[in-house]
Parts: sequence; structure tokens; C-alpha cells
Amino acid sequence: MITSTSNQKVKQLVQWQTRAKARRQDGIFLAEGLKMYEEAPRELIQEVYLTEAFLQSLRERQQRAAVYIEEKLKETGYELVAEEVFDRMSDTRTPQGILTVLKRPVYELQQLLREDRPLLVLLEDLQDPGNLGTILRTGEGAGITGVIMSKKTADIYNPKTIRATMGSIYRVPFLYVEYLGETIRALREKGIRVYAAHLQGQNYYSSFSFAEGTAFLIGNEGNGLHRETADLADFYLKIPMEGQVESLNAAIAASLLVYEAHRQRNA
Amino acid sequence: MITSTSNQKVKQLVQWQTRAKARRQDGIFLAEGLKMYEEAPRELIQEVYLTEAFLQSLRERQQRAAVYIEEKLKETGYELVAEEVFDRMSDTRTPQGILTVLKRPVYELQQLLREDRPLLVLLEDLQDPGNLGTILRTGEGAGITGVIMSKKTADIYNPKTIRATMGSIYRVPFLYVEYLGETIRALREKGIRVYAAHLQGQNYYSSFSFAEGTAFLIGNEGNGLHRETADLADFYLKIPMEGQVESLNAAIAASLLVYEAHRQRNA
Repeated sequence: MITSTSNQKVKQLVQWQTRAKARRQDGIFLAEGLKMYEEAPRELIQEVYLTEAFLQSLRERQQRAAVYIEEKLKETGYELVAEEVFDRMSDTRTPQGILTVLKRPVYELQQLLREDRPLLVLLEDLQDPGNLGTILRTGEGAGITGVIMSKKTADIYNPKTIRATMGSIYRVPFLYVEYLGETIRALREKGIRVYAAHLQGQNYYSSFSFAEGTAFLIGNEGNGLHRETADLADFYLKIPMEGQVESLNAAIAASLLVYEAHRQRNA
Repeated sequence: MITSTSNQKVKQLVQWQTRAKARRQDGIFLAEGLKMYEEAPRELIQEVYLTEAFLQSLRERQQRAAVYIEEKLKETGYELVAEEVFDRMSDTRTPQGILTVLKRPVYELQQLLREDRPLLVLLEDLQDPGNLGTILRTGEGAGITGVIMSKKTADIYNPKTIRATMGSIYRVPFLYVEYLGETIRALREKGIRVYAAHLQGQNYYSSFSFAEGTAFLIGNEGNGLHRETADLADFYLKIPMEGQVESLNAAIAASLLVYEAHRQRNA
């Protein structure tokens, strides 16, 4: 059992929690909580840390889910950590007592286009980690085939993002790209229609058909899309806004678009 | 100019920022930033605090909006505050240098039903201030006529909520009620259909018609709706979810519902 916060491993974990660069260099990410361990693909799990209180609460449950977790823990192995040391390693205010270190998955563009009519979300310089995580979560719900991000988009492995995905980080393929413009051109060549969510769009989103391959391009929270990027899209679309609302939260806008595509495809 | 953090007024403002009870007892709320001042109804504004740097940046703009703000400031009056004192009063990391103290508006149920086919959002014990603010913002965009909250719902005057509304707090009528059940009965008596967003709903949201008076009932982030409350609704509805998604963020769910109503009403 790790009982000291000056333990090398603990120092490493704190670094990983707080520094994107450290996570990137080591090719890992962290996921906290029972649900995030339960849903983690075994082949990505590298290390598991937990407290005795966590194990205790698991044993008191006696449910099928608890049995599944105990068996998974036997397979993946784990290290016990004292309560106060765990608090130090944790990014949350009320830690659940289980922290998983995972290898980063690597996706190719081809995997994001696996369906015959892909449904993609393209994010340009999105900054809020919570928004990014929510887009993955809602995107999985709406059946998207992937998320492609400009390199200035928030770190998808930020603990806040991971938490907001509620596990979708394990299941929605994603890519960071150097130039979103190149990606847009490549998608259009494959017959995928690219729609830029834009305040200057002339037509409402629900007037388009998203039955065929579709990509929604969403910009930065404060500044929207760069002109040059938006101009590469096939269409501008806008979301109607009543009252004095000037824009919607980026995660809300993305959610409305992907669920409209889902509605149309399943009508 | 206020230059000391031990100034009584500064202490009062810090109390208001951090303590819901203090805000409630004094019948006020705080709104930070230029946009929140610009859009604030004059009749609600009680006090305005700003820094010299804020005034300076305003004067350097020379735009029509800046002229409008300067005139509004002359009318409402303001007090200058030293930079470091403002930082203490502020709830944000990078303060814009303007803080407005406002009187709380008081709405009657009748005002939320002002349209011939009201579109309402009912929130039961929603806990996240950001979600609450986002629901007001998106709700205004979708043309809702009001929000009704159970008394255990987060404080709508929480600084995080106010910020997330992006000004919609000034324009969307809202009410806290003791028993949401009574409200549901009252709405149904007026011919408004109440739909409970529920994982056990049998029908997808987009299969219902929201052309007539409509109220969407949304539950707590972790636990959903209380059974007794949900049972008072006319219908359960569900949002389709692909993959392994078990639920959506509450603000996302509410947004999809109100925008589906908007889409149907404007098709």
C-alpha cells in the first residue's frame, strides 16, 4: 500500500493530473471513478489505484456489477493507496477511490468513416474541456462516427473532459489534425457534406437533409469559426434564436445538430 | 474610489458573491461583466462598481456600443474601485472590471403563460448552476415562456448560473415553487401538456406534437425525476441514445426538447 505522498508514483500521478504535456509525453491519460474503470477497454488499462474504502464499499454491494468489477480488478491488477494519498492524486473534490491510468488510443481517419454515411463533428479551437467532453457524450448518443479537432482545441485527455464524456471517450473515435482545412477537403472528396454552424448562415439547420454522409463544423466558444475554415464548408447553417440570444453554448449547438441528423435518419 | 478591501461595502459584496442566503435576505443578485451590465434592465440596477481600467478601455473603443454604455453609466451612477479591491469582489479569474448589483425580479405564474401556447421548462432539483444557466440561455433561444423550479433546484442567482445565462436571466420569467406537483396539476388544468423526460419513456420525443401548450419536466442530474412527480405528467418521453450512453447531460436534454418544439412550431 502506498502511504506517502512523497512516493515517486504519487508524484508522477499528480503531474499527469495537472500537466497536459506530461500526459502527452508518456502517452497516457487518467480516468477517475467506478464507471470510468468499469467501462475502460482492458487493452488500454495500464495501472489502477484504489483505496481500501473503495474495495470495502464494493464488497458490501454484492451485486452483479460489483462481481464484474472484482473480476476485472483481478485481471488488470491494482495498487492500494492510503485515503489521504488518494485525495492528493485525485482531481475531484469527493474522490470515489479508484483511479485508472490508460494508454491513449490511436485512430486513423478511416475508422471515423467506418459507416456508409458517416456523421462527424469537426471542432475548431474549442476551448472548454467540459464542452468537449459533453460533445463526445452527446455525440455517442446521437450515433456520430467520430470527432475531428484542430490542434488548438482543448486537450481531450483533460480530467474535466474525461469526466464529462461519462465513458464516451472509450467509444467515440477522434483525431487531432494540423489543418482542419485539409480534413474538410478530404471529407468533401469522399462525398461527405460539410456544414458550418455559422451566425451568418441563411438557412436553418432543420431545413437541410443530413441523410447522407455529414460533418458539422463548430467553432471556438468566443469567436466562432475562422473565415477561411468556414468558407471551405459546403453550406453555412444557423440555429434559429428567439429573444435577444446572440449565440448558443458550443456543446448545445453541436448537440442540436447531431440529434437533428439522428432524428432525420431514423424518421 | 474604494481602495481598501476592509471597506464595509466590499465586505458586503464578497458576502453576496459567496453566500446564497445573504443574497436572498437582501433581495439582490450580482452580475459581472460588460454584457451583463449592458443588457441589465435599468429598473433592476441598484449599484454599479467598476475599475478605472474598465472606463479607460471603454473610452478607447469609440464605438456606438461604448457610447451607449457611457450614457447608461451616467444614468445609473457607479462607484470606482481600485483594481486589487475589484479582484477581491469578483467571482471570475480574469475580471472585466464591472460588477452590477441588481434587485431580484418577481414573476407571477400568469406571466409565464403569457402566450396562447406556452412553452415551459419544469426543473426538479437540478443541481448544477452551469446547467441551470445554460437552460435559461438555450430556452430563450428556443422561445420558451418560462422556467419553473422545485425549491431544491440550484440557486438561479448563483454567479456561475448568472454567467451561463449570458443575459437570459433578465428576459426569461422564472419561479421557484414549493411543490412541483401542484404546478403540474395547475398547468394541466389550463390545457398545457406536461411531458416527463424519462429513461423509461416508451416514445421518442420527436414523435410527439408540441404545437399546443407544452411543459417539459426535467429531473436531477444524478437521479432523474421523483417517481411521484413523473407520474403526474401526461406523457413520458425519451431521447434516443445510441452506443452505450445511459443518459444525457440535463442541459443538453432540455435543449433538445425545447428546440424540437421550436422546430415543430416553425416548420
